[in-house]
Amino acid sequence: MRVAGEWHRTIGLSADGWSVSLIDQTVLPDRFQVILVTDVEQMAEAIRTMRVRGAPLIGVAAAFGMALAMRHDASDAGLERASRLLDATRPTAVNLRWALDQVGAALRPLAVADRPARAYQVAEQLADADVATCQQIGAHGALLLRSAWEAIDRARPVEIMTHCNAGWLATVDWGTAMAPVYHAHDAGVPLHVWVSETRPRNQGLLTAWELGQHGVPYTIITDNAAGHLMRRGRVDLCIVGTDRVAQNGNVANKVGTYLKALAASDTGVPFYVAAPSASIDWSAPTGDQIPIEERAGIELGHGKLPVANPAFDITPARLVTALLTERGVTEASATGLRRLFPERTE
Amino acid sequence: MRVAGEWHRTIGLSADGWSVSLIDQTVLPDRFQVILVTDVEQMAEAIRTMRVRGAPLIGVAAAFGMALAMRHDASDAGLERASRLLDATRPTAVNLRWALDQVGAALRPLAVADRPARAYQVAEQLADADVATCQQIGAHGALLLRSAWEAIDRARPVEIMTHCNAGWLATVDWGTAMAPVYHAHDAGVPLHVWVSETRPRNQGLLTAWELGQHGVPYTIITDNAAGHLMRRGRVDLCIVGTDRVAQNGNVANKVGTYLKALAASDTGVPFYVAAPSASIDWSAPTGDQIPIEERAGIELGHGKLPVANPAFDITPARLVTALLTERGVTEASATGLRRLFPERTE
Repeated sequence: MRVAGEWHRTIGLSADGWSVSLIDQTVLPDRFQVILVTDVEQMAEAIRTMRVRGAPLIGVAAAFGMALAMRHDASDAGLERASRLLDATRPTAVNLRWALDQVGAALRPLAVADRPARAYQVAEQLADADVATCQQIGAHGALLLRSAWEAIDRARPVEIMTHCNAGWLATVDWGTAMAPVYHAHDAGVPLHVWVSETRPRNQGLLTAWELGQHGVPYTIITDNAAGHLMRRGRVDLCIVGTDRVAQNGNVANKVGTYLKALAASDTGVPFYVAAPSASIDWSAPTGDQIPIEERAGIELGHGKLPVANPAFDITPARLVTALLTERGVTEASATGLRRLFPERTE
Repeated sequence: MRVAGEWHRTIGLSADGWSVSLIDQTVLPDRFQVILVTDVEQMAEAIRTMRVRGAPLIGVAAAFGMALAMRHDASDAGLERASRLLDATRPTAVNLRWALDQVGAALRPLAVADRPARAYQVAEQLADADVATCQQIGAHGALLLRSAWEAIDRARPVEIMTHCNAGWLATVDWGTAMAPVYHAHDAGVPLHVWVSETRPRNQGLLTAWELGQHGVPYTIITDNAAGHLMRRGRVDLCIVGTDRVAQNGNVANKVGTYLKALAASDTGVPFYVAAPSASIDWSAPTGDQIPIEERAGIELGHGKLPVANPAFDITPARLVTALLTERGVTEASATGLRRLFPERTE
């Protein structure tokens, strides 16, 4: 995405050819700052503290973390240690495990000396694949947005609600839920996005910043206001991202997603989940097997008062109108997933 | 309620016999500060800026505001001017209009000279009546909490979820939704309350502070986390307050209430609304006639970014398990209301 006229990915190899540069999302939207990460411990810290965040991005970040680790110790023991370190940073997004599996499978058959170069290669391939996936989701989703515009006789902008940040910043580029918004906007479909704050960490402000950079009109609301706006007919459709989709189409995503999906269902607003296949957990029959991260209470900012801070929730498939994947739009169900990904569900 | 060993109402006549003392809720929970209000303009400001807040309390505050106004100008014109000023402060809570109607009806037949003393008398009567009403709601609701405890074989504390502040601070004393909690706690029923922050103004912190003063265990959560906790079976019942109940049982309350009610309905958690009869709008057939206050965007604290800030939402009666009124528990429907208040619904 373009920031102040320059094109940026959220993560990539730096100019020195081995360290990894990434946008520090903990200081956005106040400051746009790119930092250099030079070892796997720093990368684990960046994921844990959410300097990089968003399921697709933390997958790619973990792959780059493996590459950094391989420079120092590419032995079997070094490989397993780095993989365990990165895997333990965040539990809910399946992309992290998926990316580590990809890297591990590519490196294990190789001689130790060949592993570092190959690790960088795989990380860059995963980054490029993420960009391609997001563009495909954007293209499929933009058709839905254009249809929504036709359905209102092009009388006003299409009103979209999202949650958290599933945009460019949650991926390498383009985003998952926001890719359709950027594609449709660029194709001349007028849009307006309701951006909910997404307490406690206010990733909605990241979405607002992104949309502003891209010139897409938006309005920030409290998380509480989502139901009211849908009841008042102010929302044409919802699009959110996901950290993990179960085999039956149940969706883990940022806490509060379930509440928005309930309101959408109650008011007849279509509710789409942008789900790249790397976010599908082919080993989880339902959402019940998905670990829900409990983050530190200090994120709420209420001093020493007793707090609980679950970071994700599960939205049942029955509340999801459709999944937007890189292969197209499909029903949130085992049948729907099987149709698009027959090779994964045999 | 007792604060640091001393008993306090949220509002009352001060020691000088004419000015009104009230707890400034904009500085709570950081500071407990009682301020003196000496004219109707100050009282209107206190209501508008939410130094006093909560539907029952702003009704009583408006009545005291009328008394202050009558000291200066008890003419018909003065009465109408003061009533209009106070009525315009906040649109959603019907208690405000109800209290002004009570005062107006008591004063209009009187000679101008007799009005000031009578206005104070009516304001104090409304304050006392609010305390009695809340105690009755507390007594009825405490039976529900005791039943919930029996239903779990007294094996653990009853898990209650609330929204916003419908406690002591929202009334003159005891609260509406929290009155059952205080009554049941005092009667030895072990309880734990999930307190949602209630963005943008964080009135959940007022609830947390109250519960802490009273010794009731609680945990603060983001508004987003409510659905997740209900899906995980961590909530036995919800109790919230209301700013206005329509004839058909639809409930206006702090924005976000509708989302909690949806989650409760989806997960089989009973959802109770504590509704003193002064909060029932006998002239509103459904929720659609209830004005929803749009408050200043600055409350969200995001600088100059575009924001929308609706302060209330409507929860359909079908999502409400029962209303808790001072006359007992009843179905949220025209039939349910008629049964308890036959004199108002003829």
